[in-house]
Amino acid sequence: MNRNLQDINRKNWPQWRERMHEIIFEADTPEGKAFDVALLWAIFISVLAVVLESVAFLDREYGTWLRWIEWGFTAVFTVEYVARVLSVRKPLRYMTSFYGIVDLLSIIPTYVSLFVMGSQTLLVIRVIRLLRVFRIFKLARYLGEAKVLVTALKASRHKITVFLGFVVSITVIIGTLMYLIEGRDNGFTSIPKSIYWAIVTLTTVGYGDISPQTPLGQFLASCVMVLGYGVLAVPTGIVSVEIAHAQKNAMINAACPGCGKEGHEHDASFCKYCGTKL
Amino acid sequence: MNRNLQDINRKNWPQWRERMHEIIFEADTPEGKAFDVALLWAIFISVLAVVLESVAFLDREYGTWLRWIEWGFTAVFTVEYVARVLSVRKPLRYMTSFYGIVDLLSIIPTYVSLFVMGSQTLLVIRVIRLLRVFRIFKLARYLGEAKVLVTALKASRHKITVFLGFVVSITVIIGTLMYLIEGRDNGFTSIPKSIYWAIVTLTTVGYGDISPQTPLGQFLASCVMVLGYGVLAVPTGIVSVEIAHAQKNAMINAACPGCGKEGHEHDASFCKYCGTKL
Amino acid sequence: MNRNLQDINRKNWPQWRERMHEIIFEADTPEGKAFDVALLWAIFISVLAVVLESVAFLDREYGTWLRWIEWGFTAVFTVEYVARVLSVRKPLRYMTSFYGIVDLLSIIPTYVSLFVMGSQTLLVIRVIRLLRVFRIFKLARYLGEAKVLVTALKASRHKITVFLGFVVSITVIIGTLMYLIEGRDNGFTSIPKSIYWAIVTLTTVGYGDISPQTPLGQFLASCVMVLGYGVLAVPTGIVSVEIAHAQKNAMINAACPGCGKEGHEHDASFCKYCGTKL
Amino acid sequence: MNRNLQDINRKNWPQWRERMHEIIFEADTPEGKAFDVALLWAIFISVLAVVLESVAFLDREYGTWLRWIEWGFTAVFTVEYVARVLSVRKPLRYMTSFYGIVDLLSIIPTYVSLFVMGSQTLLVIRVIRLLRVFRIFKLARYLGEAKVLVTALKASRHKITVFLGFVVSITVIIGTLMYLIEGRDNGFTSIPKSIYWAIVTLTTVGYGDISPQTPLGQFLASCVMVLGYGVLAVPTGIVSVEIAHAQKNAMINAACPGCGKEGHEHDASFCKYCGTKL
Repeated sequence: MNRNLQDINRKNWPQWRERMHEIIFEADTPEGKAFDVALLWAIFISVLAVVLESVAFLDREYGTWLRWIEWGFTAVFTVEYVARVLSVRKPLRYMTSFYGIVDLLSIIPTYVSLFVMGSQTLLVIRVIRLLRVFRIFKLARYLGEAKVLVTALKASRHKITVFLGFVVSITVIIGTLMYLIEGRDNGFTSIPKSIYWAIVTLTTVGYGDISPQTPLGQFLASCVMVLGYGVLAVPTGIVSVEIAHAQKNAMINAACPGCGKEGHEHDASFCKYCGTKL
Repeated sequence: MNRNLQDINRKNWPQWRERMHEIIFEADTPEGKAFDVALLWAIFISVLAVVLESVAFLDREYGTWLRWIEWGFTAVFTVEYVARVLSVRKPLRYMTSFYGIVDLLSIIPTYVSLFVMGSQTLLVIRVIRLLRVFRIFKLARYLGEAKVLVTALKASRHKITVFLGFVVSITVIIGTLMYLIEGRDNGFTSIPKSIYWAIVTLTTVGYGDISPQTPLGQFLASCVMVLGYGVLAVPTGIVSVEIAHAQKNAMINAACPGCGKEGHEHDASFCKYCGTKL
Repeated sequence: MNRNLQDINRKNWPQWRERMHEIIFEADTPEGKAFDVALLWAIFISVLAVVLESVAFLDREYGTWLRWIEWGFTAVFTVEYVARVLSVRKPLRYMTSFYGIVDLLSIIPTYVSLFVMGSQTLLVIRVIRLLRVFRIFKLARYLGEAKVLVTALKASRHKITVFLGFVVSITVIIGTLMYLIEGRDNGFTSIPKSIYWAIVTLTTVGYGDISPQTPLGQFLASCVMVLGYGVLAVPTGIVSVEIAHAQKNAMINAACPGCGKEGHEHDASFCKYCGTKL
Repeated sequence: MNRNLQDINRKNWPQWRERMHEIIFEADTPEGKAFDVALLWAIFISVLAVVLESVAFLDREYGTWLRWIEWGFTAVFTVEYVARVLSVRKPLRYMTSFYGIVDLLSIIPTYVSLFVMGSQTLLVIRVIRLLRVFRIFKLARYLGEAKVLVTALKASRHKITVFLGFVVSITVIIGTLMYLIEGRDNGFTSIPKSIYWAIVTLTTVGYGDISPQTPLGQFLASCVMVLGYGVLAVPTGIVSVEIAHAQKNAMINAACPGCGKEGHEHDASFCKYCGTKL
């Protein structure tokens, strides 16, 4: 019965659309894989063209060529976008999905650049489309690893939020103190700028575009650095613990490819029921 | 009997005071929640006003407005402070508590600014009042996470103290050596300034406002960086271990919301006695 | 039978070649050890000579001496390379191995410097040959530790790849945004340069040769730093977890020197079967 | 018999020397503790005097006073050193011990300053004497924590050595490459200076006194930073794992203060045999 229903659905849907969907959205057939590889290269080259166009002397020399490449790829991606919309059964659902929006944003800036100069720089958003690389090469292993990382970061989000709230509060207070101590003559021209300095210092980036000049300011800055170092060990600790946890669970929940049973030890290399390599 | 005693106590305490306490100090009733949300916004806007006032061109343009906002919020917070004192049974206990002192410090600077110019900048201490955000939104989850972090940092405090003592000693010695090697002409004008440089380097902040110029100084600085990196891995290691520990204990000591039993495994997602989700 | 075969093989191979192999490739005999120690010192001194030659005033004063040292060691290393090729049974296999290529690359630049000025600087590749230090001093313990580190890094490689892909994507997008916000006048002269800035910032190096000047740019940079800090805790977390894992396995798989049995607890100090110190 | 022997030994040793030993070397009696506290303050103030003397304007104003303080404390420490030598049974053993040498080095520079100007700056070595603080306040808890850290660092020493060897090799190669790419005009004036730059970059200190100017140099620097970040996660990982290990063992090997039994779980808060708080 279920199969019949699928058959009926398929009848209403023309053959060429289904074939197109197979090529564009899947990577199981040789054509589907070829399409995806070609697409990835197109994305990579088009992003590179945008990046290179921003270099003054390259723009002078090869500007015309780079703009031709840009328009060429935009045309290709526009055709691809239309094909994607045509080949799915629920176009609106695709168009409002994350990838649908990114696909659209990847072609709009070129057209807008006809009216607003320089907007084509936004085309680098195409770099997000490269995430499709994971699907093409069937990098199940990489997907698994990415999943462990995402799980760990998700599990850490409450702690990280508490931590960020603390960091923001402390930078506001330290920034204000430094504004009062150092004053406008030493580069701390306003509280927002002092907060910027506090963040640059607490995260140990330390540009040095603004740095304390008075002895008291340097003393306070030293305290911020030493104490801040201990505080900034916190996110690393949080993430370490969560990665250890996520990895352990990933193995326990993984099914054996041989017998399908779950619940293996987190450091097992072989299935304990049938001996298959995990 | 106990209940009667409470009734008697309540009789001596006027109805309106009790109601005020409920609104101001608790967030269970709709009015209490509305009060807290309004208060948070007021705190946020008043801090923003102080911060923006420090920006020279904003002060020129909107200075009068910003000062009006400041006085307005100070008036509101003064009324709130008086209301808080009136609505508690032991006013002195509130006034000497952490929040009581912060509440008072949040209004004083505006009044002081009538006599001492610029003191209103200290109003950013109001940012601490934002910590109340945790109570309002009933963020029990966030409170739990914060508790794990605080427990971990508390458990690390002895090790961190030993570590800080070591870091301070080493920076004094390195700072003195660099003062002798580099001398006053290369920016190392005094030992305190050299110690400041040593801290900037050891914490990997590296402003670059002072940096070694002589070959010997650069060699010593390189040793400090490479060896220092190994040493600075220590606080991260300490905090990681303690977070793992605190998290494990938090789960073991947590009572099941279903049956109230404790002692769950640290990676359990469901109560092992009644199956309720933890 | 097997022994006879070895004897026959040995007969075809002259005595002096076998002796040479023993001295050059092994460190069990006193001569072999003496050869390796002498070689290490030669490598160290020759690298030092190349490094010192690059210092302008040392080159002026002792340039002739340094070049003599360079040619002397190159002659020694050339003789050594020929001896190595002669003393192995399968010369091609040695010449195409990692060490074989490094050994060759360690002598070529001096000869090339006859035609291309300055190419002798590439001789510092000899520093890689110092890795042989592990074999000489029979630092089995260090080799074991290095193995744990390599195992941990290998196990992390998928996660690190995912992470690096993410970091590269994010720096391209942030770099482009900063190029648009700050513009060419504030040092962000092109997108590649902005990407360079983004990497310098995300890794908390923070040279300060380029730094945001506009308020919006400084705000975005602050977000990058604070959020970036959380993200950069990830590789540390990954590596920590894998080191813990690799170390545990190393102990479990280690055989007891007394009875040869495996499977000891990861924190055992003595064999649980015969009591020998592990 | 044993007791008699001690008595005989005591007879040969005058009463006042034993009493002096008790005061100077131990902190159990009130006099011993008072002596140690006074000593610590003396050390702290004398170090502070040396540090302050290096500040130009303080030296102009209070130079005479500071030099008087210096000579005063040197006299006190000289008397103390002689007293220490007199009060121990084996003076040579004390004089060649770590503390004995530090105690001597803490007084010599003042006398040398009569002949060599400025040598008194070396007096900051006195800061090492502050380590005695752990004995005075009977900070057994801190000593235990310090022991865990030292154990962890000792256990990490082989891995850290391997890691440092790797870092030094890589900085030599990267430094040479950057010297070839950037050249002397962009600040990379010699290979040692380029190695200094490589260390500043790899450790994420990033002074910015030398930074790559050519596109190729900036590309290589970016690779160094991104890959280097992954590599530098290693010491943190090593130390984290070892701290976790050392802490677990410290608890297992700790004897219960109530019943003296060992082998408690690493997260136990009470003795499992007699219930005493650990």
